[in-house]
Amino acid sequence: MPSQASRRLWRDITLFDGLQTQPSPMGVIVAGERIERVAPMSELDAATLAGCETMASGGVMTPGLVDCHTHLVFGGSRADEFEQRLEGVSYAEIARRGGGILSTVTATREASEEALFAAARPRLEALMAEGATTVEIKSGYGLTVADELKMLRVARRLGEALPVRVVTTLLGAHALPPEFQDDSDGYIRLVCEEMIPAAAAEGLADAVDVFCESIAFSVAQCERVFAAAEAHGLPIKAHAEQLSNLGGSAMAARHGALSADHIEYLDEAGVAALKQAGSVAVLLPGAFHTLRETKLPPIEALRNAGVPMAVATDANPGSSPIFDPTLMLNFACTLFRLTPQEALAGMTAHGARALGLAEHGLGRIEAGAPADLCLWRVETPAALAYAVQPGRLQQRVVNGAVTHG
Amino acid sequence: MPSQASRRLWRDITLFDGLQTQPSPMGVIVAGERIERVAPMSELDAATLAGCETMASGGVMTPGLVDCHTHLVFGGSRADEFEQRLEGVSYAEIARRGGGILSTVTATREASEEALFAAARPRLEALMAEGATTVEIKSGYGLTVADELKMLRVARRLGEALPVRVVTTLLGAHALPPEFQDDSDGYIRLVCEEMIPAAAAEGLADAVDVFCESIAFSVAQCERVFAAAEAHGLPIKAHAEQLSNLGGSAMAARHGALSADHIEYLDEAGVAALKQAGSVAVLLPGAFHTLRETKLPPIEALRNAGVPMAVATDANPGSSPIFDPTLMLNFACTLFRLTPQEALAGMTAHGARALGLAEHGLGRIEAGAPADLCLWRVETPAALAYAVQPGRLQQRVVNGAVTHG
Ligand SMILES: [Zn+2]
Ligand SMILES: [Zn+2]
Repeated sequence: MPSQASRRLWRDITLFDGLQTQPSPMGVIVAGERIERVAPMSELDAATLAGCETMASGGVMTPGLVDCHTHLVFGGSRADEFEQRLEGVSYAEIARRGGGILSTVTATREASEEALFAAARPRLEALMAEGATTVEIKSGYGLTVADELKMLRVARRLGEALPVRVVTTLLGAHALPPEFQDDSDGYIRLVCEEMIPAAAAEGLADAVDVFCESIAFSVAQCERVFAAAEAHGLPIKAHAEQLSNLGGSAMAARHGALSADHIEYLDEAGVAALKQAGSVAVLLPGAFHTLRETKLPPIEALRNAGVPMAVATDANPGSSPIFDPTLMLNFACTLFRLTPQEALAGMTAHGARALGLAEHGLGRIEAGAPADLCLWRVETPAALAYAVQPGRLQQRVVNGAVTHG
Repeated sequence: MPSQASRRLWRDITLFDGLQTQPSPMGVIVAGERIERVAPMSELDAATLAGCETMASGGVMTPGLVDCHTHLVFGGSRADEFEQRLEGVSYAEIARRGGGILSTVTATREASEEALFAAARPRLEALMAEGATTVEIKSGYGLTVADELKMLRVARRLGEALPVRVVTTLLGAHALPPEFQDDSDGYIRLVCEEMIPAAAAEGLADAVDVFCESIAFSVAQCERVFAAAEAHGLPIKAHAEQLSNLGGSAMAARHGALSADHIEYLDEAGVAALKQAGSVAVLLPGAFHTLRETKLPPIEALRNAGVPMAVATDANPGSSPIFDPTLMLNFACTLFRLTPQEALAGMTAHGARALGLAEHGLGRIEAGAPADLCLWRVETPAALAYAVQPGRLQQRVVNGAVTHG
């Protein structure tokens, strides 16, 4: 039991608890690493508050933001490619010059663990400066056993070096590496028989992900990856229905996926499958923006079915070079028409659920939950989604420790 | 002539000079408040560098960013309205509840100069933290002589209190105030005969702006405002062709406007008029994003005609609650298909030109220009537009003084 001295009070705050905004001025008491009490100020009597150190009075508090889908570790930059495309160079010509995802694969393979760490660190710090306290990081640009493990090791090291919870995901089935040009089944075998066992043996992956799309891997191939993940006790998730409707989400849901991500082309049957499996729908408006997509994910159907919707940055060098979680709150509302409350829940409670962490209370502000908190200089929780204004984070608390402000 | 001691060197930098990226590692020498020399490192000999203090080695340098179109001073917040709309409340119902621009007018009228200053300051600081060194601020939510002057005074005070150049614009003809519900010509008379003379007499306005649109003021009414501005020696500009093509830009160009802003509906004749007048086309992708518009401004025609294109935040509580200039670089490229070089020129050299400041060298990095500089932690200038990542500003220099980093 933590000593009295370590009890801290945030008083008279406007509280978004991970699912909704509470009506009255609230108080939150943290004891050590956990939230001890959350109550209207009127219910907190002198005895309860005795010995509490007041950390702040007023402001808007949310759970620490959970960015449940990123590709934050990668080598090289695609800024040149971005520039070339806008200067009129065709996709085909860029591919001929070695551009696209394979340029990131090449640069990631060439980079040392140290170099990948140094490159990813400021990106992660940017997410943290805008409130992220939990960040998922995928592999998927190594595409060999050694290079995928290297990426996962860098992700783990980032979580050890910085005050942020890093959750790792093995995404070996992200793209077909050039060595397997005409043998995608052979590459999937490598993923299933070597990559997943190796990542599991070293404890480097918290989950396994796939890219289920005509330009990546088929539903059948992804299902083989899931079977291998299950054999090693690893939870699964999928990039699915981003560019077409292959039924990847429904297949993933049948395997009890934590989440189906992107899902612009998800149909009613897919929505029902997610609902039945309890999977989270992860919305990625940064990729929608960057790719100038027009097909919206089926928000109304997901809402009506009661499928929890998470929101994430999809931070990556190609389709979403966006390292700003609060911008995603705005994008989720403006582009996908989520309400601000839904967007906030998407980067807190539902983001945590998409990572399998909701049962620990992560993403919520409630008694017993880990004390991951953000205090913001805004008038209402909705203002976080309404205005795009970096720098409104006043305090950031991870596991009870104030790490910002 | 400044002493040797005040000579500062930025060495081995990648330089975007306001119009283009220079090819070689460059050196920039600042003496006092002005840029003394800009040259490839190979041309800077020991005698030239003698006595220079090295401020940084490496990095990407751009001119300080120029945000040439903002409505940064306002009372109240429209976050609630944003939330209500997304929760399904109709525009009509929101208007009945007093929402929309008139809610900002009411709150701005009720606010003291002190309160407006305190509210605007963090917004301006957000722009500065992402590189803005010059920010235009419009009035337009007061709509009485006293309240418009109050807004302009707050804008001036912001520029005095913070290390940023503030340029003020009187936008009395922004919206029809309720007192003039059925007498828009009467309100325009007030603008011409009282507001403009008063602002000119107090030296509070650097220019005069209008909102030329069916929901605001007609071309004929705007022309009357311009005549009054000219009579008081004030430059003019216009919000025009945002929602329809009334010919406001062409009329403004005939009056030698500094700029025509928004211009999604500008036609070929309008482009030609801007070209002939030397007016700048100011692109505002934040409003395009927020309003989910689909009609793109005629970028290709502007480019072909050689009309300089500026890019600005349009920071305002309704149609662009976006206080992030580097995000606008991304939006200009992603939404409007500018090249990164065009977007950067739009927030530097052409932004300065839109404010009538280009002849002083503002927005350029060249010998003799004011030393307004940004040093960024990015690999290439294009990366500023490519990735959305707050916090990459390493140093910010205004008038020769380092104010950040
Ligand atoms: Zn992804
Ligand atoms: Zn405007």
